[in-house]
Amino acid sequence: MLFERVAIIGTGLIGGSIGLAIKQRGLVGRVTGVARTQATLDRALVVGAADDVTRDPAEAVADADLVYLATPVDAMTAIFESIAPHLPDGCLVTDGGSTKRQVLEAASVLPPGVDFVGGHPLAGSEQSGPSAASSELFAGTCYFLTPVATTDASALARMRELVEGIGARPVEIDPVGHDRMLASTSHLPHLVAAALCNAVAQLPDLSQFAGTGFRDATRIAAGQPEMWRDILLSNADEVGASLASLRERLRGWEAALAQADGDALMELLDRARKVRERMVEPCDR
Amino acid sequence: MLFERVAIIGTGLIGGSIGLAIKQRGLVGRVTGVARTQATLDRALVVGAADDVTRDPAEAVADADLVYLATPVDAMTAIFESIAPHLPDGCLVTDGGSTKRQVLEAASVLPPGVDFVGGHPLAGSEQSGPSAASSELFAGTCYFLTPVATTDASALARMRELVEGIGARPVEIDPVGHDRMLASTSHLPHLVAAALCNAVAQLPDLSQFAGTGFRDATRIAAGQPEMWRDILLSNADEVGASLASLRERLRGWEAALAQADGDALMELLDRARKVRERMVEPCDR
Repeated sequence: MLFERVAIIGTGLIGGSIGLAIKQRGLVGRVTGVARTQATLDRALVVGAADDVTRDPAEAVADADLVYLATPVDAMTAIFESIAPHLPDGCLVTDGGSTKRQVLEAASVLPPGVDFVGGHPLAGSEQSGPSAASSELFAGTCYFLTPVATTDASALARMRELVEGIGARPVEIDPVGHDRMLASTSHLPHLVAAALCNAVAQLPDLSQFAGTGFRDATRIAAGQPEMWRDILLSNADEVGASLASLRERLRGWEAALAQADGDALMELLDRARKVRERMVEPCDR
Repeated sequence: MLFERVAIIGTGLIGGSIGLAIKQRGLVGRVTGVARTQATLDRALVVGAADDVTRDPAEAVADADLVYLATPVDAMTAIFESIAPHLPDGCLVTDGGSTKRQVLEAASVLPPGVDFVGGHPLAGSEQSGPSAASSELFAGTCYFLTPVATTDASALARMRELVEGIGARPVEIDPVGHDRMLASTSHLPHLVAAALCNAVAQLPDLSQFAGTGFRDATRIAAGQPEMWRDILLSNADEVGASLASLRERLRGWEAALAQADGDALMELLDRARKVRERMVEPCDR
């Protein structure tokens, strides 16, 4: 058993799946779920993501040796502040937020004697809430851990064990590098998919006219707007930079089209296909 | 039976699937397949997409009452010219090309007494060739027919019957409107997916770092570069215009990010999700 008493703050898709995964795999003792609404907590209990629940984060963390924050990133600052006075000495705090610089800054209010290791499971779905939670959500996926110079080595080692325990692959990366990479691999694609949707908003019968290519390319745009607004805001500088770079790249395509430059188009398309081919589809999920 | 003798020129994914669909559903008599290589013709025979095959388009069309061109768009001009002198009176010629203005222009060499109706089945896959062909490729999908003022009404009616016969929904649209719509719903998304791939080309371990969102958003970029180069070139003006419009749209997102304007981001994301929600996933395929 890796941890005796776990508090999961935010029992939605990620928090609920963490609860299911660590309980079903016998990695932990007791799991307490925390959420803002009783309805979410009731669901978390029903699906088995927590052993007991409370709406009070301070109460949940009071005897925890692991605290897992699985709320939207923009809610974490207030949560760190509210739990900081109640965390027991030696407690390990981690999070599953989609961006890491802002969370690291928020974690600076944690008292000495409490360890913090940032994390980001590269898992999710368009669905949300504890009803969509699954103990297998993380199986075979990449799970970023974002230690910094001051991170305690044994705390990091315990987080690696936890990540491996739920079937994911721990990948260490610094918070700045993480946010820069995710700007390109997640946030920018989301924004572009949304822009493609907005570009065809006036078409009368989209279900008829949108082929599988368009459906695939824009599927992520079906995600929760609130969640994505917060992700984009928490990484606005990096997303803005990658967006500016993409606009410049698209200008190159526009020039190739204007000049009917088949060789240039071929080069761009061929390079893209080679990149895409390196991305094998996940097979162990 | 709708047609007695059919010539399918180009027995790849689309042509092969047309052959399988019209044969298996008893819509036609004999199907002759035409391709450039004997290997493709052999495969077309093996999978049952044609009853006999030849590498000579003139021979194949000599006694046909339906000629279906399923080659890349840029090859069609030469094919129209080579078959024009050999087409029997009363023959109906159609095509499955991804853009329609260029094909319509190429069809102007057809002799009087031969009808032409442009078409575009909104079906396909990243796979290609007759081995990937399926008689169910068109089931439940949209099949554009692009008549113009001079199109013979009974020829159009026969094409509608053929399209319905293979389980697709015929949708009439003029060639200009078709190419403009497809620029937004197919060609631009392809180009953007390729640009997103090229933007992450330097990442060391893409299979690890690309989540399902990135995979979905860029899946179309795995398509054949040659085919897509030709599609983009044959619709360069419309794709260029929709690309310029997208770049302008992205500039709006960039401004919202720079100003940390959560309301503007929320509005853009929410509108996109509503558009995406109108696109139900195909259920009858």
